[in-house]
Amino acid sequence: MITRKVSVLGSTGSVGTSTLDLMAAAEETGSGRFEVEVLTGGNNAALLAEQCLRWKPRLAVIANEASRAELAERLAGSGIEVAAGNEAIVEAASGPVDWVMASIVGAAGLRSAWAAAGTGATLALANKESLVCCGPALIERVADAGGKIIPVDSEHSAIFQVFPADAPERVSKLILTASGGPFRRTPLDQMKSITPQQAVAHPNWSMGAKISVDSASMANKGLELIEAAYLFGMPQSKIDVVVHPESIIHSLVEYVDGSTLAQLGTPDMRTPIACALSWPDRLPWPAPKLDLAALGKLTFETPDMVRFPALKLAREALEAGGVAPVIFNAANEVAAFAFLDRRLAFLNIAAVIAETLEKAQGEGLAIGNGSAAESALAVDKEARRIAGDIVSTLDLAA
Amino acid sequence: MITRKVSVLGSTGSVGTSTLDLMAAAEETGSGRFEVEVLTGGNNAALLAEQCLRWKPRLAVIANEASRAELAERLAGSGIEVAAGNEAIVEAASGPVDWVMASIVGAAGLRSAWAAAGTGATLALANKESLVCCGPALIERVADAGGKIIPVDSEHSAIFQVFPADAPERVSKLILTASGGPFRRTPLDQMKSITPQQAVAHPNWSMGAKISVDSASMANKGLELIEAAYLFGMPQSKIDVVVHPESIIHSLVEYVDGSTLAQLGTPDMRTPIACALSWPDRLPWPAPKLDLAALGKLTFETPDMVRFPALKLAREALEAGGVAPVIFNAANEVAAFAFLDRRLAFLNIAAVIAETLEKAQGEGLAIGNGSAAESALAVDKEARRIAGDIVSTLDLAA
Repeated sequence: MITRKVSVLGSTGSVGTSTLDLMAAAEETGSGRFEVEVLTGGNNAALLAEQCLRWKPRLAVIANEASRAELAERLAGSGIEVAAGNEAIVEAASGPVDWVMASIVGAAGLRSAWAAAGTGATLALANKESLVCCGPALIERVADAGGKIIPVDSEHSAIFQVFPADAPERVSKLILTASGGPFRRTPLDQMKSITPQQAVAHPNWSMGAKISVDSASMANKGLELIEAAYLFGMPQSKIDVVVHPESIIHSLVEYVDGSTLAQLGTPDMRTPIACALSWPDRLPWPAPKLDLAALGKLTFETPDMVRFPALKLAREALEAGGVAPVIFNAANEVAAFAFLDRRLAFLNIAAVIAETLEKAQGEGLAIGNGSAAESALAVDKEARRIAGDIVSTLDLAA
Repeated sequence: MITRKVSVLGSTGSVGTSTLDLMAAAEETGSGRFEVEVLTGGNNAALLAEQCLRWKPRLAVIANEASRAELAERLAGSGIEVAAGNEAIVEAASGPVDWVMASIVGAAGLRSAWAAAGTGATLALANKESLVCCGPALIERVADAGGKIIPVDSEHSAIFQVFPADAPERVSKLILTASGGPFRRTPLDQMKSITPQQAVAHPNWSMGAKISVDSASMANKGLELIEAAYLFGMPQSKIDVVVHPESIIHSLVEYVDGSTLAQLGTPDMRTPIACALSWPDRLPWPAPKLDLAALGKLTFETPDMVRFPALKLAREALEAGGVAPVIFNAANEVAAFAFLDRRLAFLNIAAVIAETLEKAQGEGLAIGNGSAAESALAVDKEARRIAGDIVSTLDLAA
């Protein structure tokens, strides 16, 4: 029986709703019991209220202050405290619980994950920015508080499940798998005219538009490489990426003795979430099970560095260290949204990242005072300004 | 630094020589230091003496008593004690060490593994008979003595590396991979006329003739299924077999939360031996590393139960329990050697197993008095007699 006092930051998003679904499944089968301290949402007051009436948290927070009244009305008489705004979310994340799902995307997610990291709770981490932008500081903060990070991304969850945390010297290499996105086989000359509609059609995972673009450009894999380096304390030279279009082997760990351990499963985010929710125990739920014979085959290829320059840029940013990963992430986000807005050609996404990294270096962007999170956010803001300027100078045609 | 006082039972065989090679590699790199107590060989006095002069064991034992004088002469002046005969090997296996490699094949291997199991040493188990013929008793004996079994077979080593020994209830299924042998695609009507030469040409592993026949008939996978059931305490209904011709994923463990963990590697017995030698540490050695992109693809299919009836018979023997697995193993061995001798058609191997199981049941073969090992060996002997009689009644044409 898994018992936890939990907060779900970002409970109305895809990861958040899956988390609550798994908690409900565990309670139904008697394999888990959860006391919910905080639920937070972005805009969807109706869904957040529904979740609150089911889970009876002490506190419900909605990011959009304009939705405060609606949330309060829907929860009237429930005894659930209501708050609104990003600062209220950060404050809610600072409260003591056993387990926090940090699944708010973007900068707001970074702040709340940082707050939760200081509480000593087990931090189920779905927010990429917190690791990419202040990974080493975040990991130190969690360790100092006596907590633990459990990654929720499928690749990092895979590595986490077969990585010897107490003896990392036993590992010779991490191998991140990548679907290769929809343009793995597209002739290079046709890649110039890729449209947002083509880019968001991900073959295996159902995802949001921005992350689908990141997957198509493999900037996503670059960010995951940076996260993996921080999470598992490995240099980029010991992290390989292999294209595996079926997304069944979620990643692998090669040991010094030649054994390679891996985690496999159908591409379903609920599996890594279930793992994070119950670790080191395992939560029984009616998971879709892997059937290798039905799949027939798994294929692998080396990522094409001409086609996917973002991956190389991520390695360079990681090697450069300091704020370079923050800049990589900011520039990529600006470029990906510009592409979705039809203001940037697909092949120019990597160009924006490369030029932003170079220009920001010239301007001497560096870590400032304040917490690592606030400092990273200041760098992030400057890098976005620089990337935005670069986007406006580039032709829509690559 | 791995330090162990070890005995290698069967040091002149393939597993034994690989074990000593890995120990030497570890000493060269400074990652291990080994004090050798006992080395034993079968017939090859020259090789055993060479190993002894390198490793300076306290005692060297050769199974073939006719080779005693040669071994003694070759070790004259070395101070190494010399003995000969199977009883001397069993006695040598009973001495106190930290770690024993039990890699003597067949019945002699069962006796010495049983002896080593009672010492409290870590038992690196390469002898199949000890698990198949008296698995539950052997496991209990090891536990009672405060020891531990580490399987050396690649499939069981794979499962061992990703199995939660302290919480087996987290596992929903074991998935054994099988190469499918050389006749996976042979038309059924041509399987009647399979020759020993065709059967011993294994696609991935270089093995002895008898085990190659077992691989071709999948009786080998049946034996491994029985071993896995005992080693990991799983019913046969929770052990799947999937044909995976490339032999890269060595086996998998499916957890209740939908995660499936696996061990992968190039098909090289030194990897599971290295794992057994250093567990829970990892021995660095210049292992051939897995390159998924170079491999390109891994394929999987459901085993054909018409083509491979031995697998179904192994499940039935496991379900029947008692001495049925002993009979399965004995009948298969008699049948495989009869096939290699051109006294039995390939497709009749399974028929011999099925008929022996039925006849032995009729004769009331059961566990006798004495140790589980001696009792199993008595049943084994009777089952071989029955199987031999059955072979002689069958046409060479299937």
